[in-house]
Amino acid sequence: MAAGNAVLDRISDSIRSTHGPQVVNGIGGFGGAIRIPPGIEDPVIVSSIDSVGTKLSIAAQARRYGTVGADIVNHGANDILVVGALPCAFLDYFASSKLDPHVVASVVQGAATACGKLDCALIGGETAELPGIYRENEFDLAGCMIGIASEAELIDINRVRSGDAVVALPSNGLHTNGYSLARRVLSDYPLDHVFPELGRSLADELLAIHRPYVEDLRGHLPKVHSMAHITGGGLFDNIPRVLPVSLGVDLEWGTWQVPPVFELIRELGNIDFDEMCHVFNMGIGMAVICAPENMDAFVSRIPGASLAGIVRPLKPSAERVRILK
Amino acid sequence: MAAGNAVLDRISDSIRSTHGPQVVNGIGGFGGAIRIPPGIEDPVIVSSIDSVGTKLSIAAQARRYGTVGADIVNHGANDILVVGALPCAFLDYFASSKLDPHVVASVVQGAATACGKLDCALIGGETAELPGIYRENEFDLAGCMIGIASEAELIDINRVRSGDAVVALPSNGLHTNGYSLARRVLSDYPLDHVFPELGRSLADELLAIHRPYVEDLRGHLPKVHSMAHITGGGLFDNIPRVLPVSLGVDLEWGTWQVPPVFELIRELGNIDFDEMCHVFNMGIGMAVICAPENMDAFVSRIPGASLAGIVRPLKPSAERVRILK
Repeated sequence: MAAGNAVLDRISDSIRSTHGPQVVNGIGGFGGAIRIPPGIEDPVIVSSIDSVGTKLSIAAQARRYGTVGADIVNHGANDILVVGALPCAFLDYFASSKLDPHVVASVVQGAATACGKLDCALIGGETAELPGIYRENEFDLAGCMIGIASEAELIDINRVRSGDAVVALPSNGLHTNGYSLARRVLSDYPLDHVFPELGRSLADELLAIHRPYVEDLRGHLPKVHSMAHITGGGLFDNIPRVLPVSLGVDLEWGTWQVPPVFELIRELGNIDFDEMCHVFNMGIGMAVICAPENMDAFVSRIPGASLAGIVRPLKPSAERVRILK
Repeated sequence: MAAGNAVLDRISDSIRSTHGPQVVNGIGGFGGAIRIPPGIEDPVIVSSIDSVGTKLSIAAQARRYGTVGADIVNHGANDILVVGALPCAFLDYFASSKLDPHVVASVVQGAATACGKLDCALIGGETAELPGIYRENEFDLAGCMIGIASEAELIDINRVRSGDAVVALPSNGLHTNGYSLARRVLSDYPLDHVFPELGRSLADELLAIHRPYVEDLRGHLPKVHSMAHITGGGLFDNIPRVLPVSLGVDLEWGTWQVPPVFELIRELGNIDFDEMCHVFNMGIGMAVICAPENMDAFVSRIPGASLAGIVRPLKPSAERVRILK
């Protein structure tokens, strides 16, 4: 508790910097409050809870904690974005075998910085010291993102039509998924090892911050028929979740940039291409599905975005997602 | 992931049973959405994130998982209640060294049942299997409660006046705090041990569900000047957080029921009374502060509630909370 209070003092400035006029002040420490932004007709609250997972063990090993704070914010922001909501408020949960104020401060400052960039208020958090539950020097980090949307403007996947374009928004690496497999494959290499094809240390590569797509899509959501945040389960599991059951997607391999880390993992681990696409985002952090005539609103405007595929009718028992090489 | 999907199938009915007309359906699996209840002027979103803590180790040891699911819901509901908000939506986070579908199902069903009683929709959740982070057979459970209030009706602690009544709402045991100390003191006794003064097994006593005060206070919040949810830090740390700096509270020991578990822990551990009040709720789950003329709205109506103390002016450097014996 004393450690917790010391941390709170250190990080309160960075937390307060995320508090715009939407935050209700002076309500004490038990809960945070935000106003519904004005001008939203029939507002709905959209929320998602996530955790960083095995990527945390790499952060712990590298003793680098700020980036995972940003990861959990951006992961949650992308999760509610696919429903059509923009982030408003975030709460974090940090637990460890032993609370180190420096670690907690780094994590929360990373989260606050990411929140600030998304115009999202960090309104609450909880830290817990649980030596009986956590392994020594390990920690867990989860967070809850709260967003707002007008009900009429929520993404409706039933708008997806055969022939719609699938636009790949670029990932900058593994984001927050596939780390169990990646760690296993890369276990022989120290985190400061520099593979020439990566051009940076393994720590830098594996701790690259999960990219948020909020600013890329802000103001352009009405043109989106559906979109998939590519997280655990990779391209094969995430895209079908945002398609009507009668439709599938063909992706054309080579139409989007695949960060070299994926080829490195595939080669070193001798991993099947299908398994790779079941685990990793393979360079597509967000798959945006839209009418062909609206494609340029995404492809031309967002750096690194490309037309990666097409929505197709689905014959019985066919694969929902095919990757054509 | 496969284990996760099996769990999802088993528990989806209990989750759906919490979904009233406020829940927006058909938005896919990435985020849950709820409508702002109608008729609330200038609505604000109030949210709190909490975890169950060391109580989980007792649940794991007793292989009894449903009650902690209810604990985390009720804890969060009480936390936003003190701000003046009623619960609308909840999201849970469960992580373990290994995901056991039965355990996850018990926890989530416990959470869903508690949500149902509070008229709160369980709109999301995340499970994570992290063998590198969690000790074997241990798990962590956190949750985010989202509530709504009209901004003008948020609790304003500046309404508290010297002479206000402090009404104790009864706890039914440790709730969710003080378990590290309790476990240490009780470590010599198996969980099926029955102390005569408790009249139930240690497992039953220590896993009693954290009591929610939502239904006790629904419709009566305008009469509340301030209230403190007595969690970590006990009576001494939580009550000052909801008082203007110029005021303190005198509690009269003996005016409220103290569950026998507290006296048992004090005796067995030879623990100082002050430390007890710094760690445990000592029988007061929620301390409600109101004008003396409104006291009966709580004392006469809520079973087990009692007038426990008074708000007093604070002389320089005096204790914010005194317990008079």
